[in-house]
Formats: sequence, C-alpha cells, structure tokens
Amino acid sequence: MDEHYPVSKKNKIRQLSDYANYDREAVQRILDGGLVAQVGFIDDASTVVVPMIYGRKDDVIFLHGARKARIIRMLEQNNEVCLNVTLVDGLVLARSAFNSSMRYRSVTVFGKPKLVKSMDEKIRAMRIISEHSMPGRWDELRAPFEREVKMTGVIELCITAASAKESRSMPDDEDDDYDIPIWAGVLPLTAAFGELIGDARLLPGVEPSTTAKSLQGRIV
Amino acid sequence: MDEHYPVSKKNKIRQLSDYANYDREAVQRILDGGLVAQVGFIDDASTVVVPMIYGRKDDVIFLHGARKARIIRMLEQNNEVCLNVTLVDGLVLARSAFNSSMRYRSVTVFGKPKLVKSMDEKIRAMRIISEHSMPGRWDELRAPFEREVKMTGVIELCITAASAKESRSMPDDEDDDYDIPIWAGVLPLTAAFGELIGDARLLPGVEPSTTAKSLQGRIV
Repeated sequence: MDEHYPVSKKNKIRQLSDYANYDREAVQRILDGGLVAQVGFIDDASTVVVPMIYGRKDDVIFLHGARKARIIRMLEQNNEVCLNVTLVDGLVLARSAFNSSMRYRSVTVFGKPKLVKSMDEKIRAMRIISEHSMPGRWDELRAPFEREVKMTGVIELCITAASAKESRSMPDDEDDDYDIPIWAGVLPLTAAFGELIGDARLLPGVEPSTTAKSLQGRIV
Repeated sequence: MDEHYPVSKKNKIRQLSDYANYDREAVQRILDGGLVAQVGFIDDASTVVVPMIYGRKDDVIFLHGARKARIIRMLEQNNEVCLNVTLVDGLVLARSAFNSSMRYRSVTVFGKPKLVKSMDEKIRAMRIISEHSMPGRWDELRAPFEREVKMTGVIELCITAASAKESRSMPDDEDDDYDIPIWAGVLPLTAAFGELIGDARLLPGVEPSTTAKSLQGRIV
C-alpha cells in the first residue's frame, strides 16, 4: 500500500504548507488520537457539520447514529463526505497578534459514505467504534441485542483523500519584534481522563475492571 | 432580544432531543468555551470541513485566515456556512455498548458569511478573535501593521440559526442490565492549560505578565 495519500486540488494544503503531511501514518495517528469527528455533508444545498464518534480500521472510518437520524439518512444521500478531527495542544503566544497561533494536530478526510447493511458487518463496525474510545470495554459487555443493531445506522467511509496538518511550533516573530520587551512562548494544553466515577446503581462488590481502570489518566 | 434562536427544520435536533437547547445563553456559553470551530462550506459541489479559530461578539462570529486562503475565498462564495464547536467532557461507560456514550457540550451554528473590508472593522474583529483564546494579550502586543491587516481575511458570520446539545449524563441502562455484575459510570475528561514555556529569544529579565500567567491552569 502507498505510504502517502494522493495529493489533489481537493486535499492540497496551501497555507502553512510546511505543516502539511499526506502520510498515511500521520493521518491515521491523528485519527486514532481523536474522540470526535466533525462530519460535513450537504442537506438541501446547505452544508451541515455534526460531531460524531468514530472508529478506524485501515483506510476505512466507521460512523454510527440512530438509524433514523438525519445524519444517517443524509450520508446515504451524499456521494462524498468530509470530516475533520482537530486536537488543540496549546497556544503560541508570539510578540505580535499576527504571529500568534496554536499548536494542534488536525486531519481532514474525504470519503464516499456507504451504509453498512449486514448484521455481522454492523456489529464488527460497532465494535471498532466502541474500542476506539473505550479500548477493551466491548468484550466485557453483554453482546448487543438484535434490535439494538437494527436501530443503529452504520456508515462506512473509505478514505479517498486526506491531509494532516500539525504544529508544535514556538513563536516565529518578525526580526524587529525580538527587540520588544514582551514575554513570548507557548502555553501547552493537555486533555486527560480523570478518575472513574461509579453510578448509583452498581451491584454490591462490583469494582472497575483492570481494563476500565487503565483508561484513567490517559492523555488524549 | 429573543432569548432563544428560532427552531426550524434546519437546526431542530431530533435525536436525544432532551439534550437540545436553543437558548442564546447556552449557545453563546459553549461558543465562548471552545478554542476551535469546524467550519463547513461548499467547494466544487463537495463539502469541506476546516478547523478555524474564532471569536464572538453578541450574535456575530468572526473567523479569519490568510487573505488568499481557500477558506476565505470559499466563504465569500457561500451563501451559508455551518460551524460546529464540540467539547468532550468524558466517557459514559454503560452496561451495554448501545447505551454507552459521551459527555459533551456541542453547538451547531448557521450563518451568512460576509467579508469584512474596512481596516477598522478588521482590526476590531482580529482583536475579538485574539481575546477569545488569549484574553488580555492584545493590549500587551504592538499594534498590527497595516500590511498584516491587509494580509488577513476576516469573515463575519451573523448567526441565523443555532442549536446546542449538552450531555452531563450518567449511564442510563436497560432495566435488565442493572443485574449484570459489571462496573458502570463515567470517566471525566478535562482539558487544561499547563505552565508557560518561554521561547529561546526572550530579552534578559522579561517575565510573563500577570495576564499571561493568569492563563496557566485554566480549564477549557
């Protein structure tokens, strides 16, 4: 398999192109690090952007929602869908507003949406989505009921074009601005899971599994 | 001013509508809490979703980018733009995959994009965007150069429709599932700024201002 996604008019990054990357590895790594994707599609000739959870297997992204949800109906009707996942890693406080920016990891993906129909494939995709944000949890839960699978609409999005953009930069100021006596640097932003909070109806003696406990403190 | 945004076919939330909210206050509060908006627009009959920083003043969202960037050219050509801001606050680990979900704050906004042309209005918008993520910083920096303002494309998006969706829920399981001896609850996710990291070219004796220091530890 090619190491890079093809670069076309559609996914070519023109601004700050030093930060651009079309490597499969970079695109997939950022996708794997995110929790929510913003999915854009066309509805009545307008664009709609909706947040969705997702999962990835190779070059396929899986999305799901209630079978009757607008997003699922719309994806069925769109020849192409675009989604973006962005993780913000900090503020870059430069010596001017113009050069101030953010640290981020971002990926934009285009793909053709396809409704997944068979029960087996739907369950497989639901598992991939679940494992994306809650690794190890699926096998600890009861198997899905048939009616739950039927109520779930699953979309398979095979990636046709993608680009990543990442900045881990420090301020890059105008030459003259370095003489201004102002502090400049970076303020990192970290998203991290905290500690598990049990619900009010736990059975006596039931504790979080090792898998559930391993999610604590994880950095996104 | 009306306390709610009008509800129409476009912004009506149909799934999990208990979590939906059309209050100006809720929409604006979530917008004010986010750092990046995913902006969707139409380019060559496809949807494109791009992350952008933004700022808000009353019912107007300001976006900016390089004057020549595709996003700015495209916004000029789109009658309507949709953007979404989503903050993830945790995982809801239910007793089944079907009832597992996330805690989040999300807002979807529609508006008509307008290119801001006058220098004064552009600077005012650039200040609003800067203050959104770096409050207090603008007044500490040198004033923007005329060429910097000219190189910046600024879009004004007057909100025509909006909806918020928030979940702070605990697991809500099927009646029978409460008898399964599995742990269930919530794993909170918190995004927080860390400590300032100075760049390598600080002038001797230059320390972060009180304003810059006040950004440390802030929760998003």
